[in-house]
Amino acid sequence: DFVGVGVDHELISAVPSHNSTFVARNFTDAEVAYCQAQTSPSSSFAARWAGKEAVFKSLGVKSKGAGASLRDIEILNDPETGAPTVLLHGDAKAQAAAKGVSKILISLSHSETVAIAFAQASRSL
Amino acid sequence: DFVGVGVDHELISAVPSHNSTFVARNFTDAEVAYCQAQTSPSSSFAARWAGKEAVFKSLGVKSKGAGASLRDIEILNDPETGAPTVLLHGDAKAQAAAKGVSKILISLSHSETVAIAFAQASRSL
Amino acid sequence: DFVGVGVDHELISAVPSHNSTFVARNFTDAEVAYCQAQTSPSSSFAARWAGKEAVFKSLGVKSKGAGASLRDIEILNDPETGAPTVLLHGDAKAQAAAKGVSKILISLSHSETVAIAFAQASRSL
Repeated sequence: DFVGVGVDHELISAVPSHNSTFVARNFTDAEVAYCQAQTSPSSSFAARWAGKEAVFKSLGVKSKGAGASLRDIEILNDPETGAPTVLLHGDAKAQAAAKGVSKILISLSHSETVAIAFAQASRSL
Repeated sequence: DFVGVGVDHELISAVPSHNSTFVARNFTDAEVAYCQAQTSPSSSFAARWAGKEAVFKSLGVKSKGAGASLRDIEILNDPETGAPTVLLHGDAKAQAAAKGVSKILISLSHSETVAIAFAQASRSL
Repeated sequence: DFVGVGVDHELISAVPSHNSTFVARNFTDAEVAYCQAQTSPSSSFAARWAGKEAVFKSLGVKSKGAGASLRDIEILNDPETGAPTVLLHGDAKAQAAAKGVSKILISLSHSETVAIAFAQASRSL
């Protein structure tokens, strides 16, 4: 049974990944290490940012204000296949549990200027 | 069990939301009220338009000619979470029923120039 | 049960569909015939290219190097509804079977400059 879907897209230039305060507030250490090791760190940060927003949408919760922090949505890549995977922490984890969500699938894509993400949340029956 | 997925994207400038005939033909009163109350009505109309197209694609039916009217796909927002939800009317409702579709999930996203929508249609087993 | 999702987007101008070697390596004869019969063949080739990448992502495999060839992901359109459908061949078929994938849904969208695709892979329980 699936619970929700989320799509998000961002202009890469609109995600201030050169701002260390912004990065520290929204990305985990493992995410920062991954993005900075990529050919285009700004593209990777933007894709991950879009991914976090897409995950929030798939959970049907708001990401602003009373919502969970974007840092609680951690997107890491499978070391073998490179495919992105979602790990929830803190409030995001609690909100997903309250809705019975047991799995979140995600996919990211970026061109030179735009990042797009899609997420799908589901629960076991 | 899921039946189909649909993705659509539109240039916001390509959706003639300033044209009242176009709006009246394709959007319900509740949709018009919602979009006009947003910070950028043209972005909201474009995102909703993309959403209607994505829903049609998820149903595997054509949106033109013999297909159902886009007005039959109503996309409203949950008053609590703000998440978009799909209500079917008329021909779209009949076509969905004929395919056994019991749920359609949708997500919308827009930047300053582009609107993107994703829809997923499923049926209970 | 679903296995993975995939999203991809491409600038239409970045997909070299005027290059016959590129086309022959990545598209089947039926795909070429379909795309060349469309109003904008370059848009159709780009959307299908994005679709193949999205399918690879939904399978959680890499499309480069050891991965399956993009030609093994064939995207044809239902003659009745026009909806795109996925047919797997060769390595892609074997990799999908190894993961128990029994169905892949796909949707394509293009504007004048950009093509977007979404794919969802699932298995029967």
